[in-house]
Amino acid sequence: MRLPRRALSFAVATALLTLAQASSHAQPTQLPPPDATDPVALKLMQGFPPPPDKQVRLGTILKYPNARWALHHLRELGPTANIARGPGPASELQAAPRELDGLAFLDDKGARTTLAQWQKATYTDGLLVIHQGRVVYERHYVGNQPHVPHVLWSMSKSLTGLLATELIHEGLIDPAAPVTRYLPELAGSAWADATVQQTLDMTTGVKYAEDFADPQSGVFQYLISAGLVPAPANYPGARAMLDYLPTVQKEGEHGKGFYYKSVDTEVIGWILQRVTGKGFSTLLSERIWAPLGAEQDGYVWADPTGAQSTSVGINATLRDLGRLGEMLRQNGYYNHKQVVSPATVTELRKGADPEKFKASGQTMRAGYSYHNHWWLPHDVDGSFEAKGLMGQHIHINPAAQLVVVKLSSHPIPNTAFTHNYDRLAFAALAGALR
Amino acid sequence: MRLPRRALSFAVATALLTLAQASSHAQPTQLPPPDATDPVALKLMQGFPPPPDKQVRLGTILKYPNARWALHHLRELGPTANIARGPGPASELQAAPRELDGLAFLDDKGARTTLAQWQKATYTDGLLVIHQGRVVYERHYVGNQPHVPHVLWSMSKSLTGLLATELIHEGLIDPAAPVTRYLPELAGSAWADATVQQTLDMTTGVKYAEDFADPQSGVFQYLISAGLVPAPANYPGARAMLDYLPTVQKEGEHGKGFYYKSVDTEVIGWILQRVTGKGFSTLLSERIWAPLGAEQDGYVWADPTGAQSTSVGINATLRDLGRLGEMLRQNGYYNHKQVVSPATVTELRKGADPEKFKASGQTMRAGYSYHNHWWLPHDVDGSFEAKGLMGQHIHINPAAQLVVVKLSSHPIPNTAFTHNYDRLAFAALAGALR
Repeated sequence: MRLPRRALSFAVATALLTLAQASSHAQPTQLPPPDATDPVALKLMQGFPPPPDKQVRLGTILKYPNARWALHHLRELGPTANIARGPGPASELQAAPRELDGLAFLDDKGARTTLAQWQKATYTDGLLVIHQGRVVYERHYVGNQPHVPHVLWSMSKSLTGLLATELIHEGLIDPAAPVTRYLPELAGSAWADATVQQTLDMTTGVKYAEDFADPQSGVFQYLISAGLVPAPANYPGARAMLDYLPTVQKEGEHGKGFYYKSVDTEVIGWILQRVTGKGFSTLLSERIWAPLGAEQDGYVWADPTGAQSTSVGINATLRDLGRLGEMLRQNGYYNHKQVVSPATVTELRKGADPEKFKASGQTMRAGYSYHNHWWLPHDVDGSFEAKGLMGQHIHINPAAQLVVVKLSSHPIPNTAFTHNYDRLAFAALAGALR
Repeated sequence: MRLPRRALSFAVATALLTLAQASSHAQPTQLPPPDATDPVALKLMQGFPPPPDKQVRLGTILKYPNARWALHHLRELGPTANIARGPGPASELQAAPRELDGLAFLDDKGARTTLAQWQKATYTDGLLVIHQGRVVYERHYVGNQPHVPHVLWSMSKSLTGLLATELIHEGLIDPAAPVTRYLPELAGSAWADATVQQTLDMTTGVKYAEDFADPQSGVFQYLISAGLVPAPANYPGARAMLDYLPTVQKEGEHGKGFYYKSVDTEVIGWILQRVTGKGFSTLLSERIWAPLGAEQDGYVWADPTGAQSTSVGINATLRDLGRLGEMLRQNGYYNHKQVVSPATVTELRKGADPEKFKASGQTMRAGYSYHNHWWLPHDVDGSFEAKGLMGQHIHINPAAQLVVVKLSSHPIPNTAFTHNYDRLAFAALAGALR
């Protein structure tokens, strides 16, 4: 739903515009020096109470440098559902440390850089490198700690896609079925004549844009519905995700091209919960966290009605994401058990049609495709990836027996422009460890 | 601060009155049958979305039977700070099960009852009985689960009191010092000329009443400040705890009599954080959860500014509260270490002057005193107790080598009227196991 301009009061429009300005369109050349954004040094949210200019509230998390604190404290700002790791012991994550800070490589502009410089330049909160199943490198920065879950933003989508693929494999969901077979509530929406698979591959035609620079963009209506952005006074739109989705209308054709949109994932997440009768956090707990032997509970952001955000809401620790990556690298096997079926991992790694991907305009990721909510570079190593706003990455390189997890709080939401730099860092790690 | 009636708009007054009516003054004879209040059977918060009449939101948690769901799902309704259990293994809690459902005893009216009947009649969510360090009985009801933290309400006060006593023992807090030595912000408030010890023993004279039946009572302004009750439209009062406390005024004299009030604890909790420079959940994690070898993280409710409720905000599992009780029963020793000093436990068990306790009007608890936020029956067994709204109990009986933890969601907030029934149940357990 793109709200007609006349439906937006001046106050609402101004509030959203401020948000859009605060959260976007800093040019890479205008980025704040990373060392000047450390929330510990800046004393954000320190003191009882913190001074007014050091307080971070829900409405200000996209305002920099607040994000550097908020991305590992999201639970302190609103409702969440716990992802229980269960009563068992944590699975062992063996360490075989390597000194890699000085690992040198050429960046996307051809200049010499190092692994340490790349991390700093991309506002890294945590980096984990696992080679042949052993942790060779682990770093935590700016107050982020090993036991504290960090926002995954859109890497949440890849977990939703993983669950969906597993439920398809089990026969609980038919990818060729119309979305409305599971969600009759969407009969009047963009998804009225879309299939599950089109929604999983984000080739639906939906009047919605994930544009943080445009206050009219659907992403702000989406974030308000998710409870992640407080509604401006007199806001006329939906204030809960399951109220919002049925109002989103069709634009264009389904199945033609890939357009990245969080609402597609929320539809998939709704289907998962509808067919299993279980909440998203329960599915994650039973099917991933507990069998993996995660060492910490994770959590999922919830809207004011308790609906969990399956698209951007998961929070997890660096190491538990490492376990997830290792499990996928080993075709679903980890912690002495088959956590998800090998067929599910095979499906995730299949990718989609790179021709359809071109529609997205994501020129920095040329050659990629997006299938079942996983990013496929179609490289010779058979890599596959999860990615999220502000620099979240799970990079799995089966040929190099490598998993890299990177958690960040970059000042620019859409970090596509760091994509080539990130790829070169991953390649340097693969080269050094191979 | 008792808001002048003229400062309350009609809408605000009506909203608070509705809340007071919803949350209080049901007569014990009018109680809903416990079997008719099971949130699982009632399908509260089930479905995606739950039907409107099955939705529980923050504003309706005191409305019965919503509390039966909300008391073990509080985190899903607002901001919370995690109490990390840390990376170590959980301490062993040996089981030596005894069949005690049929344990018969006479209730406070002289009628024959059983342990099972007592639990049902008092809307129990979980019961744990530990004798000589072994779990002899453990039950979970109405969807509450062993790994899910449950609201402690005012048992939180006893944890705050425990931390305060330990910091006094360590010399970080002087109990004879004026509160304003640590909190100059309170110079214009009721605590301007109160000591820490008066505040710890709740013998301060404060214009504040913990009366759920009176919408003018301070408790509603307190709950709104804590973020636990949404502010009615145009509410003129404070909306954050550290804004509210400085507005609370003196009434009567300090040091004369015991009057139960949550605001005293929030002052103590503020002092703990001020002198250590650490958040409440961090103190609980470092000083209690981690050394105890808790098996689950706990959490603390936070207000919209991130201030944690040290008076009613802690959530913890039945078993971890059992570990806490065992640690105190053993003079601070548990999990192969001295978790808190023996002197601290000695101080908690000292009690206060039962004469001063009479001022409270808590006739059901005649003979008790309240010292450093622990309830002392002054019985021959040397028992000491934590208690919370709606039927939360930690009962520690050193002579009987017994710890009983009871978590409940009773429809009447102030369950003082079940006090004698509860005492008889604890005594029956002590008698059966001794």
